[in-house]
Amino acid sequence: MKMTPYILTLVCLFTTAYVQANSDNEKTISIQPNGSQLPMTGLEPYFTGPVRVEPVFQAKGEAKGAGAMVTFEPGSRTNWHTHPVGQTLIVTSGKGWVAQWGAQSQVIEPGDVVHIPANVKHWHGATDKTAMSHLAIQESKNGKVVTWMEAVTEQQYIKK
Amino acid sequence: MKMTPYILTLVCLFTTAYVQANSDNEKTISIQPNGSQLPMTGLEPYFTGPVRVEPVFQAKGEAKGAGAMVTFEPGSRTNWHTHPVGQTLIVTSGKGWVAQWGAQSQVIEPGDVVHIPANVKHWHGATDKTAMSHLAIQESKNGKVVTWMEAVTEQQYIKK
Repeated sequence: MKMTPYILTLVCLFTTAYVQANSDNEKTISIQPNGSQLPMTGLEPYFTGPVRVEPVFQAKGEAKGAGAMVTFEPGSRTNWHTHPVGQTLIVTSGKGWVAQWGAQSQVIEPGDVVHIPANVKHWHGATDKTAMSHLAIQESKNGKVVTWMEAVTEQQYIKK
Repeated sequence: MKMTPYILTLVCLFTTAYVQANSDNEKTISIQPNGSQLPMTGLEPYFTGPVRVEPVFQAKGEAKGAGAMVTFEPGSRTNWHTHPVGQTLIVTSGKGWVAQWGAQSQVIEPGDVVHIPANVKHWHGATDKTAMSHLAIQESKNGKVVTWMEAVTEQQYIKK
């Protein structure tokens, strides 16, 4: 019984931390200036070839969505992966490919908007000869936005 | 008691319709080609001056977020408004202003990313002499993404 106050205190502390982390306490508009968000590092295990991932916006308050600009050098692509709430790709430059498991790859070009449904195994990337950039937007479910899988083999990549 | 089967049937029908409308039944990647999404019409009551709003992506399945490209001619701006889950603006061209109620307006330029917290009364638009375009992304709450309010007066607009 002597432990009860300590346990209650711990529960209160965790609850306060959780509520603070999950509510939009901000009341002021904020601007992240151009060039202030540096490319992410340590993502090599999830891609084949050189890829630059630049954060664009983060989930804040009740919002679940986050966005990143992804630039694939020619021949580069993601591993196979799925998203628990799906994903939107807005192609901004170059020419690339997107493919889902068991289907032919499709060409994507600037201005195209790609909808990847929830839990559909897929990859996206540059073509073998051109670079490609897209804004990628995805919402989290239980704190998770992606499940990474195996690399896309050369044979899978060049399959038309 | 004779009505019970009919009521049960109605409940089942509505439940089925609701589940279908709110689950991501799609299992195939879809591409909206560049140029296939026409500008929205009928939005004049919510803006001052010529503004073009082009849909980019829609909320699908469990996702709550939708995005639109908005282009403001010089002098054009939104009405005052709020978003129930906040909003992200990614400025893509030109030079504009954003302001929240009671504060000075701030300059926004290409590459800047603006976070507007939930329920913060604000407006955004072009400067008085330049056009401005941004991608606007917002998530819905109880089916609602925005609460529109009164127009931004000339005095509020030019206030620095």
